[in-house]
Amino acid sequence: MPIDPVALTADLVRCPSVTPEEGGALDLIERILSGAGFDCTRVDRNGVPNLFARWGRKGANRTFGFNGHTDVVPVGDAAAWTRDPFGGEIADGWLWGRGATDMKSGVAAFVAAAVDFVQETPPDGAVVLTITGDEEGDAADGTVALLDWMAAQGEAMSVCLVGEPTCPERLGEMMKIGRRGSMTAFFTARGVQGHSAYPHRAKNPVAALARLIDRLSSHDLDQGTEHFDASTLAVTTFDTGNPATNVIPALCRATVNIRFNDAHSGASLTRWLEEEAARVTAETGVEIALSAKISGESFLTPPGELSELVARAVEAETGLRPEPSTSGGTSDARFVRAHCPVVEFGLVGKTMHQVDERVEVAQIEPLKAIYRRILKDYFA
Amino acid sequence: MPIDPVALTADLVRCPSVTPEEGGALDLIERILSGAGFDCTRVDRNGVPNLFARWGRKGANRTFGFNGHTDVVPVGDAAAWTRDPFGGEIADGWLWGRGATDMKSGVAAFVAAAVDFVQETPPDGAVVLTITGDEEGDAADGTVALLDWMAAQGEAMSVCLVGEPTCPERLGEMMKIGRRGSMTAFFTARGVQGHSAYPHRAKNPVAALARLIDRLSSHDLDQGTEHFDASTLAVTTFDTGNPATNVIPALCRATVNIRFNDAHSGASLTRWLEEEAARVTAETGVEIALSAKISGESFLTPPGELSELVARAVEAETGLRPEPSTSGGTSDARFVRAHCPVVEFGLVGKTMHQVDERVEVAQIEPLKAIYRRILKDYFA
Repeated sequence: MPIDPVALTADLVRCPSVTPEEGGALDLIERILSGAGFDCTRVDRNGVPNLFARWGRKGANRTFGFNGHTDVVPVGDAAAWTRDPFGGEIADGWLWGRGATDMKSGVAAFVAAAVDFVQETPPDGAVVLTITGDEEGDAADGTVALLDWMAAQGEAMSVCLVGEPTCPERLGEMMKIGRRGSMTAFFTARGVQGHSAYPHRAKNPVAALARLIDRLSSHDLDQGTEHFDASTLAVTTFDTGNPATNVIPALCRATVNIRFNDAHSGASLTRWLEEEAARVTAETGVEIALSAKISGESFLTPPGELSELVARAVEAETGLRPEPSTSGGTSDARFVRAHCPVVEFGLVGKTMHQVDERVEVAQIEPLKAIYRRILKDYFA
Repeated sequence: MPIDPVALTADLVRCPSVTPEEGGALDLIERILSGAGFDCTRVDRNGVPNLFARWGRKGANRTFGFNGHTDVVPVGDAAAWTRDPFGGEIADGWLWGRGATDMKSGVAAFVAAAVDFVQETPPDGAVVLTITGDEEGDAADGTVALLDWMAAQGEAMSVCLVGEPTCPERLGEMMKIGRRGSMTAFFTARGVQGHSAYPHRAKNPVAALARLIDRLSSHDLDQGTEHFDASTLAVTTFDTGNPATNVIPALCRATVNIRFNDAHSGASLTRWLEEEAARVTAETGVEIALSAKISGESFLTPPGELSELVARAVEAETGLRPEPSTSGGTSDARFVRAHCPVVEFGLVGKTMHQVDERVEVAQIEPLKAIYRRILKDYFA
């Protein structure tokens, strides 16, 4: 009997799996997959719950992978919700609750598609599902732990589809073939304190850091590349904590966040930031130290077999040809990309992380159908 | 019998007259002056103690004025002092204590000079002393209150000497003939909050304010004028208070302090700041509001009779020709300047406001001699 992805989404929403709580979500999926003949292994690490499931032979020549997460961000102000965030209620054509779009519906759709597919038309190959309980948190022991374990066990995916929401407005209009990189630069400017009436006796770190921030903010990193939008830079903090308006402080700090495309790397941007800081130091005498934290490099699965496979299935089911995009924040695809070609496709994600998060019920069966068609075409 | 200005300084240091406490200092001076034939009036206002004293006839054609203060700044870390800050001890050639240089020695010297002068060589004219208990605080009810009261009473000074410390290293090397103005500008930049991954959907107030601050800090206000050093501008605060490094905040603030010469006024500088802020707003779309607080306009008693009188007396007693300077912070001369020509001359002020404030004992008698010679020459 086919699995109903709407009912499964509702069941998953009822599991209060706020990162890093398992909340019963992975247990539920493990029961369904085990019952359908999948080999399931819990790959928990440092308290983070993760599930690995494989149908078919380990080491199969063709292994299709799905990746997703069952953890959700906190509810926030529970009183502001119209409906119980963990109720999984269906009303007015919507299924309501935290995780309804990000991404319990996506997980339910690919679990249902995979089970139905292997039971009705057992393929010559394997289907692997990697599902983590920490994508919304640090993500240090989530998909990374699953991939580490797979490498140690000789498990592999030939290709992977991440089921995150990817469509801005209408189901089918966008898929992700890569993501921009992200890094945060923490600047500390150290000058010499002094009275504001005698600025020549001091070295003003605020003026120096303001110059650096203006130069960085005014600089165009690039005009975009073949598959990426232009890189962006945003200063987010600038603080002195100085209580006295007539004292030049000795120290101040600023933070800059950069989202970058494949024209750059974390290392090349760090070098640029260091050079700009050194230039201001040479001009002002104020030492500016940089601490850079690279959250992820940019990555791209260039348009090819995998993206064409997904695009054709989406078009067949929705009539829309999905745009291959690299926009948006980060996802666990940044970890999978080192393992195998990876693309992302899922529902409309408009209400993710918001109060009254909800998914349009009418999108869930079509998403399952898309995933199932992808499997069928892949193994054809 | 001549008054010993060293003993009087020590007695004044023993009065704990931290602003706005009278501490017995004005009472002591009033007793001395009354005993010497001065008409004394306490002109207290809003809890601030002030003393007006006149020898000679009210409305005299030639009335020489002295101005000073007996209040002192707080001791700070009392344990860090080598000697009791209110002990008035004399050791190693120094007289130790809070207010020893700023400016109980100056007050003691002009009180002693005035008393000795009027008793030994009664002049054809009047000598007025205005001494306040709030120069170090808000100064709203100090010298201002004395001048208000004098205007109401028909009291006047023809010229005035403020006895603040004016010499950087050696007694006699510098007098003040004016002061720079001072103003503080408070900027608030309001943009639109947003995620740092999508800066084009936000308006970043930090980048805009950094640009403004860099422009203001990089601008030369002037190259100095005939009697003034170049004006200076110093940014002293810049704060967002933003706890998140991936969120562009809606608002940030910065403070700029300007010390300006007679090429500018508080109003002209406020206009310039408004124009520069408007230019950045036009470029960035970020609104930048300005609140300006003008602490004092610049002022100058141009070199002439009064400064020459003082300079000749200083040179006769010390062998040094005092440089007529307009450097440094503010003083109550900024209030007196609206009343009559005013200059400032006093001791070396190196330890003022510091731990272990102290005055070289050997400078106090010469200062009294200088003040006394000024009186003699003025009435000659």
